[in-house]
Amino acid sequence: MADGKRQHKKNRLEAFSDGVFAIAITLLVLEIAVPKITSTIHEGEVLADIWHEWPVYLAYFVSFMTIGAVWIEHSALVDALDHIDGVFMRLNLVLLLFAAFLPFPTRMMSEWKGVADAQRVAVVFYGVVLLVMVLMLIVLGQHAEREGLFGADIADERKEEARVKYQLMPSLVAYIVAALLGFFVPRLGVSIYLLIAIWLAVPIRDVRRLFGRRAS
Amino acid sequence: MADGKRQHKKNRLEAFSDGVFAIAITLLVLEIAVPKITSTIHEGEVLADIWHEWPVYLAYFVSFMTIGAVWIEHSALVDALDHIDGVFMRLNLVLLLFAAFLPFPTRMMSEWKGVADAQRVAVVFYGVVLLVMVLMLIVLGQHAEREGLFGADIADERKEEARVKYQLMPSLVAYIVAALLGFFVPRLGVSIYLLIAIWLAVPIRDVRRLFGRRAS
Amino acid sequence: MADGKRQHKKNRLEAFSDGVFAIAITLLVLEIAVPKITSTIHEGEVLADIWHEWPVYLAYFVSFMTIGAVWIEHSALVDALDHIDGVFMRLNLVLLLFAAFLPFPTRMMSEWKGVADAQRVAVVFYGVVLLVMVLMLIVLGQHAEREGLFGADIADERKEEARVKYQLMPSLVAYIVAALLGFFVPRLGVSIYLLIAIWLAVPIRDVRRLFGRRAS
Amino acid sequence: MADGKRQHKKNRLEAFSDGVFAIAITLLVLEIAVPKITSTIHEGEVLADIWHEWPVYLAYFVSFMTIGAVWIEHSALVDALDHIDGVFMRLNLVLLLFAAFLPFPTRMMSEWKGVADAQRVAVVFYGVVLLVMVLMLIVLGQHAEREGLFGADIADERKEEARVKYQLMPSLVAYIVAALLGFFVPRLGVSIYLLIAIWLAVPIRDVRRLFGRRAS
Repeated sequence: MADGKRQHKKNRLEAFSDGVFAIAITLLVLEIAVPKITSTIHEGEVLADIWHEWPVYLAYFVSFMTIGAVWIEHSALVDALDHIDGVFMRLNLVLLLFAAFLPFPTRMMSEWKGVADAQRVAVVFYGVVLLVMVLMLIVLGQHAEREGLFGADIADERKEEARVKYQLMPSLVAYIVAALLGFFVPRLGVSIYLLIAIWLAVPIRDVRRLFGRRAS
Repeated sequence: MADGKRQHKKNRLEAFSDGVFAIAITLLVLEIAVPKITSTIHEGEVLADIWHEWPVYLAYFVSFMTIGAVWIEHSALVDALDHIDGVFMRLNLVLLLFAAFLPFPTRMMSEWKGVADAQRVAVVFYGVVLLVMVLMLIVLGQHAEREGLFGADIADERKEEARVKYQLMPSLVAYIVAALLGFFVPRLGVSIYLLIAIWLAVPIRDVRRLFGRRAS
Repeated sequence: MADGKRQHKKNRLEAFSDGVFAIAITLLVLEIAVPKITSTIHEGEVLADIWHEWPVYLAYFVSFMTIGAVWIEHSALVDALDHIDGVFMRLNLVLLLFAAFLPFPTRMMSEWKGVADAQRVAVVFYGVVLLVMVLMLIVLGQHAEREGLFGADIADERKEEARVKYQLMPSLVAYIVAALLGFFVPRLGVSIYLLIAIWLAVPIRDVRRLFGRRAS
Repeated sequence: MADGKRQHKKNRLEAFSDGVFAIAITLLVLEIAVPKITSTIHEGEVLADIWHEWPVYLAYFVSFMTIGAVWIEHSALVDALDHIDGVFMRLNLVLLLFAAFLPFPTRMMSEWKGVADAQRVAVVFYGVVLLVMVLMLIVLGQHAEREGLFGADIADERKEEARVKYQLMPSLVAYIVAALLGFFVPRLGVSIYLLIAIWLAVPIRDVRRLFGRRAS
């Protein structure tokens, strides 16, 4: 198979994945309901009604940041590949299955926000979906390594790929802890999900370089 | 027409098709309703309510895997083409028409899940849409072959294309059998749809190579 | 500005336009409601209920084919361009505004299907949106010609572009006639919209070549 | 890192951003509800009902034009870049967060349209989201400049980028004024938002050139 062909196949996987990530991240907004109001409402009450929905905005934000972070890791991983194989395409489809599914547990968290026992279940359910997304990223990375999908000449991308796993592995553990704590204190669970998303999204290397340059 | 031009036209068909497949596959999640709960519900009941919706998750999963598998076959087919013509573009549009329509029968299966007679009709309706998608893939492949859209020099892609049909043709028969059985035992029909999707998604050649390598 | 730069700008306009067309065409399915059923319904009644919704499926099909046809014409036009300018980008945005708006009149036709007087208004409203889409295609083509956006060396693409207008201009007239007739006989109006979509989608040149080859 | 690699990373950021902008702009149509009608309604009343919804169409139009304008500025900015870094990717994600969120305040404006006090809050809320989008564009441009992401040889793109900020900076001020006025006279606020969107979308340089050529 020619090089152009190989590259082309990789490009199409990227286009499809970018599409699914972009749509999943944008559909999330449909899960946020506008507060119902009466015709005699005052500004203060409207503001209170909007404020009252904060767990919904938080769930939106966590889901958005998590998909965003997964997209960034995914694009770093696929960038570093020389070519992809059929198994990679299917494993990628499983990752997309869970990314596309995320609006459902997000809605669950929004709709059940007033009911303590339901909220506990929702937080765990939500955490499991987040965890599987990160797990699939790791599986993709390991499959790529085992099958030699990284090019021979991209030694320093390989290091970058290693860095990816360095941030992903602790996230898995953190998701398990967060889901367990979330069963007892839902808000704590969601807060940890938020921290994990930020941790995944922060570009450690770039930040270090940025600070390093300013310090010098 | 220059080569770059031809390639460009093909690229745009891919971009549009990738878009429609990606959106259709991601919109499916909107069809899954969050179970309604009361404010005095207990965790056990919430879990039971979530579990009770399993036919909905199954329909989601079957639709997702089928669109995913069709996308994979579509990208293998278009990959192997040297260029496309106007008729290919229109036949492709018919394939997209049914792919984009799939969320409707998926929702039908979800909403009618408790009513036996309606479920029977829904399973057949659903199967017909799945069947037409696969049929259109075959039609696209045959049109490409008849019109010489495959390049002269891609002998081994041609073989791959043959393999595509090798997996698609039995699927057509399986869909007809599944829809007929599904009319009498809806769950059996859906289960066969799931098996067909997995059969379509599994990369026979890659799996064989993977096992072959490990065995040696 | 370098050639690569110019090409790049055109590519991004295509990517964005493909995205909007693909999403608009796929969102249409959300407008089709699954018939409400009772738990004691029989298969025959379910089939009758599904059949009863035919104007909804027709509206879906007309909208799908029209956006599909507009996408095909749009891609033929942009293909033939050497580069684009800022005005082209904005005119293109107006075309996308109406393409993205189409799900609204489609839903209007579905929701008002039982009420004769409302249906008359909906058919005209729908026709106006379809007409503006085609009108904007013509405006884009004329702007491109006036500003010399077609390359100097693509004489035969230019002819193709001329062919585009050859099919678009009569469509404008047909939409006006269809909307007027549709005010009095809604179903007639929609039927003509369908014929226009098919007329726009049929690749006259390719069909002629196909028949010509078979005849010889 | 090779040049192709750098370019590739930029391309994928564009693809993902184009996806999110395209979806957000197309989802807006779902926020427009078809007026409920009775079965004995007359054409005149239907027209009156459609007309009565004008603030909804206006909100749709303002949101569409604003996202469209932001997309145009975004593509001009990214076009002018030589490469991107990790921080740019994350700042870009924040811009997308607000672009994807815009359907929510748009729906707020539609659903609360009859209630004066709620409308006042909605107009301010809406303005803040619009403002943050433009603010993030400026932040992206300044980060790119500070980090030297513009190529050394693209002197005149740099000027263009300067022009971008020339149009963006006054918009920020205008949004603040519009939101403040909008709190007291909602319709005035929305009208100014519309003017800002048009101001952002109009390609000053191209328009000047167009008029200049005709005058000469």
